[in-house]
Amino acid sequence: MADFELLKELQMSRETQIVQLVLDGLGGLPRPSDGKTELEAARTPNLDALAARAQLGLAVPVAPGITPGSGPAHLSLFGYDPLQYDIGRGVLEALGIGFDLQPQDVAARGNFCSVDEEGRITDRRAGRIPTEESRKLVALLRAIKLPGVETFVEAVKEYRFVLVLRPTDGQTLQANILDTDPQRLGVPPLPARAQDKESEPTAALINDWLAAAREILKDHHPANSLTLRGIAKDPGLPHFDAVYGLRAAAIATYPMYRGVAKLVGMEVLPLAGETLEDEVEALRAHWQQYDYFFFHVKKTDSAGEDGDFERKAAVIEHVDQAVVPAILALEPDVLIVTGDHSTPAALKSHSWHPVPTLLWSRYCRPDGVAEFGERACGRGSLGVLAATDELPLALGHALRLNKYGA
Amino acid sequence: MADFELLKELQMSRETQIVQLVLDGLGGLPRPSDGKTELEAARTPNLDALAARAQLGLAVPVAPGITPGSGPAHLSLFGYDPLQYDIGRGVLEALGIGFDLQPQDVAARGNFCSVDEEGRITDRRAGRIPTEESRKLVALLRAIKLPGVETFVEAVKEYRFVLVLRPTDGQTLQANILDTDPQRLGVPPLPARAQDKESEPTAALINDWLAAAREILKDHHPANSLTLRGIAKDPGLPHFDAVYGLRAAAIATYPMYRGVAKLVGMEVLPLAGETLEDEVEALRAHWQQYDYFFFHVKKTDSAGEDGDFERKAAVIEHVDQAVVPAILALEPDVLIVTGDHSTPAALKSHSWHPVPTLLWSRYCRPDGVAEFGERACGRGSLGVLAATDELPLALGHALRLNKYGA
Repeated sequence: MADFELLKELQMSRETQIVQLVLDGLGGLPRPSDGKTELEAARTPNLDALAARAQLGLAVPVAPGITPGSGPAHLSLFGYDPLQYDIGRGVLEALGIGFDLQPQDVAARGNFCSVDEEGRITDRRAGRIPTEESRKLVALLRAIKLPGVETFVEAVKEYRFVLVLRPTDGQTLQANILDTDPQRLGVPPLPARAQDKESEPTAALINDWLAAAREILKDHHPANSLTLRGIAKDPGLPHFDAVYGLRAAAIATYPMYRGVAKLVGMEVLPLAGETLEDEVEALRAHWQQYDYFFFHVKKTDSAGEDGDFERKAAVIEHVDQAVVPAILALEPDVLIVTGDHSTPAALKSHSWHPVPTLLWSRYCRPDGVAEFGERACGRGSLGVLAATDELPLALGHALRLNKYGA
Repeated sequence: MADFELLKELQMSRETQIVQLVLDGLGGLPRPSDGKTELEAARTPNLDALAARAQLGLAVPVAPGITPGSGPAHLSLFGYDPLQYDIGRGVLEALGIGFDLQPQDVAARGNFCSVDEEGRITDRRAGRIPTEESRKLVALLRAIKLPGVETFVEAVKEYRFVLVLRPTDGQTLQANILDTDPQRLGVPPLPARAQDKESEPTAALINDWLAAAREILKDHHPANSLTLRGIAKDPGLPHFDAVYGLRAAAIATYPMYRGVAKLVGMEVLPLAGETLEDEVEALRAHWQQYDYFFFHVKKTDSAGEDGDFERKAAVIEHVDQAVVPAILALEPDVLIVTGDHSTPAALKSHSWHPVPTLLWSRYCRPDGVAEFGERACGRGSLGVLAATDELPLALGHALRLNKYGA
């Protein structure tokens, strides 16, 4: 990962601007017809022209062979080793629905489940009840009151919801607590079990809440019980301004990415809408106010997840037309084009494949290859790099780091 | 190295099969006549065709510039950082002669040496006495009995032998004990010195054995004394099934490689003979029973050690004809072709050069270079990789790892 102590020591203030353009799930796999990946098949004259003046490489999000979720993958892009900085699932789930999580909050991901008359789990996902049904149950659960904390219950999707406890009496809640989901059928949900003394009051509160919730749900088969997972707090990550000396802004349409950006201290910019053009407009409007922009494009990943090669290529073409020239027109000092992970249409899921990555600055050594694609990147001079190296490289290319040693 | 905790957490069971084909000492150096290495000079149509569909790279066994022995080099290929997991020399030597080492055994490598009348070493290798001579002396040393342990003494080669102590009274022997070889002439051998309290009983046993052995040897100049090195036990490495979730099998003709494979929990398959064809037959016979096969080819290394460029190239050609198509016919999900280290004929020894490596799977991104050789690998999309990354990559390509984080 990025050496935060070193970077803190060397960082200096400069009037230079960095853009990290992240096409979610950018990396792909060859299609049978012509052996081209989504990125290789897309017509991308602007990215190709930029590639000719840039350096290329393949970024490894977490570790070789490891397929990352979106949370860890973005932490990596921001320079944080996701194996060291663990964002609990409850926190990610809360961020994912745009919940305004506070540092003192404890968040958990909830699952509605089905239990038999002895309370033993018969379906860990309550028959995947529709989200609409889930919303009604969540509304009922909001009636539960606990001493000294405010509780929030929010529907997510189907059988999933989020529970947040927020202290109102000044106490500090700790959340080193095991999941209540036993991960198998035929046994009852487990109680919340604190793993240290400091977390015991939180576990007691959660167990009280669970008892009340089960009482409310008992006649609502198939969602007649529930389990909690990933009970966690904001991990208190070091912030971009402290580590990198960067005033950082995030441009992203999905709550999850906005949330992770907030965790590392970025300002999340307001958007007029959810199109790429809206995102570009936000970049233009705030260009002078920040040193670094995280510009997130979601739909490459969605298309990959749907197994839609053509649509993923089309999103890339749209970025090439609507985003790349607009960024270049603003004359950034450093532009990185990358992805958080690969989502090959062929796999319909995230994958472990390293991610095509392009770094341009006035001070880069161009590879001279006028093509941005997996194979071109596989021969690029950035080599196979850790995604966590992108920010330090950007700082170097932005002349924002002092010399180390005499 | 491979992150064992992470892999334990993410591993899942799948009906997919991985083959790691290891040509010992595969990497080479260019010959003056045409600048080709052994691998580049060999006619390898099958490997070249496979390369066109695969990804290439250069694997670093231990660390840049470091020439590994066979033990550490194989640990790396299996994903174990050899700097962290140290197999004592006594254990390696015992494995190398096919000794059936048990977890409770203490093994040491022995050297016969010459001493003068005051017991000071005059030749640390006893004039490199022939192995036949050594065998006779070893037979004499077997007469030494110690309380509470069974002792084994086995000749290795020339002045080298192995001593093994096996507790018979249920005690646990520890082996944190320094070498008795002072590594210079003109001084007597050192006593065995325990480095912790737990190892003191073992050191006492060894010193009793050494005294008895010197008494037996005193009239057998030049082998009229001895020293012990690398006093050690089976290091208790984590096993393949626990770390990777793989039922693993080893196909290897030499005791040393079979032994190291056993240390990481592989089943060593029986062979009808020592040819490549025998090894292929073992692979075929056990194909359905395992998830992973370590397939070892020894003779590339032997030829390199002999400085025989042509013979090394010929062994590679034999593998290309007799092994590669046979493996592909079994339709593995992942095939890695690599070496444990380089043994350039030009150096007649192991070397530090990174090792040509090829990874094929249905889900790889082919580099599209129809050539398996050092230079092609130097431009490959696997880049310069740590040999310890091969197993995690193989698991990813075999779809045997769950996603990390949400």
